[in-house]
Amino acid sequence: MPGTFRVGLLGYGTVGSAFAALLAERADGVEHITGLSPELSGVLTRSRGSFDEILGASDLIVEVMGGLEPAREYVLRAMRAGKHVVTANKQLLARFGEELWGCARANRVQLRFEAAVGGVVPVIRVLQESLAGAHVERVTGIVNGTSNFILTEMAREGMTYADAVAEAQRLGYAEADPTEDVNGADAAAKMAILARLAFDTPVHLDDVRYEGIDHITGDDMEYARDLGLGLKLIGTAERIDGGLSVRVHPAFLYAGHPLAAVQGAYNAVTVESPAITEITLSGPGAGGPQTASAVLGDVISAMIPPAQTPPTRERLEIVEDVESAFYLHMEVADRPGVLAQVAQVLGLQGVSIKSVVQKGLGENARLVMVAHPILESRFFAALEMIAGLDFMRSRPRAIRVIEAEYV
Amino acid sequence: MPGTFRVGLLGYGTVGSAFAALLAERADGVEHITGLSPELSGVLTRSRGSFDEILGASDLIVEVMGGLEPAREYVLRAMRAGKHVVTANKQLLARFGEELWGCARANRVQLRFEAAVGGVVPVIRVLQESLAGAHVERVTGIVNGTSNFILTEMAREGMTYADAVAEAQRLGYAEADPTEDVNGADAAAKMAILARLAFDTPVHLDDVRYEGIDHITGDDMEYARDLGLGLKLIGTAERIDGGLSVRVHPAFLYAGHPLAAVQGAYNAVTVESPAITEITLSGPGAGGPQTASAVLGDVISAMIPPAQTPPTRERLEIVEDVESAFYLHMEVADRPGVLAQVAQVLGLQGVSIKSVVQKGLGENARLVMVAHPILESRFFAALEMIAGLDFMRSRPRAIRVIEAEYV
Repeated sequence: MPGTFRVGLLGYGTVGSAFAALLAERADGVEHITGLSPELSGVLTRSRGSFDEILGASDLIVEVMGGLEPAREYVLRAMRAGKHVVTANKQLLARFGEELWGCARANRVQLRFEAAVGGVVPVIRVLQESLAGAHVERVTGIVNGTSNFILTEMAREGMTYADAVAEAQRLGYAEADPTEDVNGADAAAKMAILARLAFDTPVHLDDVRYEGIDHITGDDMEYARDLGLGLKLIGTAERIDGGLSVRVHPAFLYAGHPLAAVQGAYNAVTVESPAITEITLSGPGAGGPQTASAVLGDVISAMIPPAQTPPTRERLEIVEDVESAFYLHMEVADRPGVLAQVAQVLGLQGVSIKSVVQKGLGENARLVMVAHPILESRFFAALEMIAGLDFMRSRPRAIRVIEAEYV
Repeated sequence: MPGTFRVGLLGYGTVGSAFAALLAERADGVEHITGLSPELSGVLTRSRGSFDEILGASDLIVEVMGGLEPAREYVLRAMRAGKHVVTANKQLLARFGEELWGCARANRVQLRFEAAVGGVVPVIRVLQESLAGAHVERVTGIVNGTSNFILTEMAREGMTYADAVAEAQRLGYAEADPTEDVNGADAAAKMAILARLAFDTPVHLDDVRYEGIDHITGDDMEYARDLGLGLKLIGTAERIDGGLSVRVHPAFLYAGHPLAAVQGAYNAVTVESPAITEITLSGPGAGGPQTASAVLGDVISAMIPPAQTPPTRERLEIVEDVESAFYLHMEVADRPGVLAQVAQVLGLQGVSIKSVVQKGLGENARLVMVAHPILESRFFAALEMIAGLDFMRSRPRAIRVIEAEYV
């Protein structure tokens, strides 16, 4: 029997319930990695549970109740009792971070908070661990998925601000009261935390200057497109003349910027440092399951501090023949019936054509197609047959096409 | 006096020498984080140094000598002697990974290898730690910066393959013999390592099917652009019908794909999992200083396993007034001299104009400008003056513009 690792859960809203489900679902995997079996030792909600009982029964406390009090008191008491803490509470860290981190150090426990910033984007771990030895010059982030969704809809669909907000609410990307998301306050709390970690200096929420996107008009978006610009709500923390500026405001980005391509309810953070040039991390902003996944990553890390590569436990067969879409490039004699014959051969192998471009070239023509996904073996069989057709002027060329399954 | 942490260095080429320099430069920072002062205890090169002596004098061994032997022997002997190891050797891990990871577990030491895959992109840490609890479905990567640079030049500049290779060599992105980079072998080794970590199953280099970019023509790039596609050398590791496919080949991506925007000598990896949707990490491919930075991150992690947020040690002043470029949107009466007056007011505050768009609108006009970077206080002073001009039809609007300083 492996030992158990007892996890106490404070809060059972969207994130808390998703975390409880994920912990149960992934318990075997966690045990494989850590050698310990995780166990939910208690849940505190508004109406039931006792913090003291849960604390006594837990090795680690997960705080996803939100708000400042009693969350602050519970987190401090847990650490003073020698328990590790994982929290998703950005407001708590942006206001009381130094007190909490100091308490963790004094009690030699871990305080982890990946879920507080960046949705699924593991920017806290990368700043604290991968870049621990780097001198950071600037952190730039899209750290509020709601506002990025709204701006994307306005740019893509030409919606008004009000319609885009309504659409975000309809799809669950914005709350009934979206104020904190659209006025920059949520992003400001996250940037305070990132700045503290990146620059090793105390940063309080009050140090962050912010403005939101509520005054943006569709008209601005339209002109900006003409100028080659895209609009984002950008958080910036950077060294300036030996000091530090931390701010959140809407900003236009040129197309070459690493954050320019971030669309929809996504988060992304770019960290710049001379030693690394820059790193960009991107992924969906928080939803319940995504945040729960970040919390679980922190719980596992707290369970087994030294990173290990566990023994393999799967024996997956290597699959040789996979499906792919293909680009197919042919030089052919320019005469009637060529396209029909090629299409027939492709059809025999079950290859279905998505798009065709044909260009004349003297007596010859170039015929370029994109085929829908098909098993590679069948596509290549068709390719061999096509290569043997008498009107082919050179060997046909095929290159795989990866279809976008993304937002 | 803090304790010391002794680091033995095997290899003193581009990466080894950059690491030695970085360790000296960042020693204070490392001590701040870990409480231990790092010290280079010995360097093994082809012509000098003794492995046994270095091993005896070190707490951790950094292996950046490359090649299979004696690197494999040294890494195994170090771990058997109870030393942590940090390596950048992808070929070693892709061929002898299970032996090495097993040895690390058996001896309860850390074997870290962030620098082996992805340049500065911290994909190893994210897979092993942040996503430790996730069920991964697919890993897709651009993991060879040289070939991505070549493809980018072919697409952007219309270069032939041969010219793009020569350009990459001239700029130091490709070696004199670029075979392993362009034929997919280098990317295949990296994908074997990523697949092993993501899917918890043994993956050897021999399991990876690969082809390179040496047969790509400019012609393919041109047709692809017409079809809305961009070409990359893509590594894929994915679950298929309960098995695993790991492969590297050139592939066209549609614009919406998270890797489609990755240009130049960059690396990027997308990890897909139901719990997180997907995460994409991107940054420059390896150069000496970048690889050294990844090695240093691993060394620090090995020095202090439990992640801590150290006390602050800087007291950076918060800077309120920063420089920014601006988009400026004005509704004005459509009459002569308007542009001149606006330009004059901007000039008085030192605001310089980068681009202007003017559109008539009945008796009024819309005047949209982008201004070069200037202190915000000066820009806003100009804005107030413009707001007071008698031909303004509504309050002018300003939005910041972030200039691309990136590739």
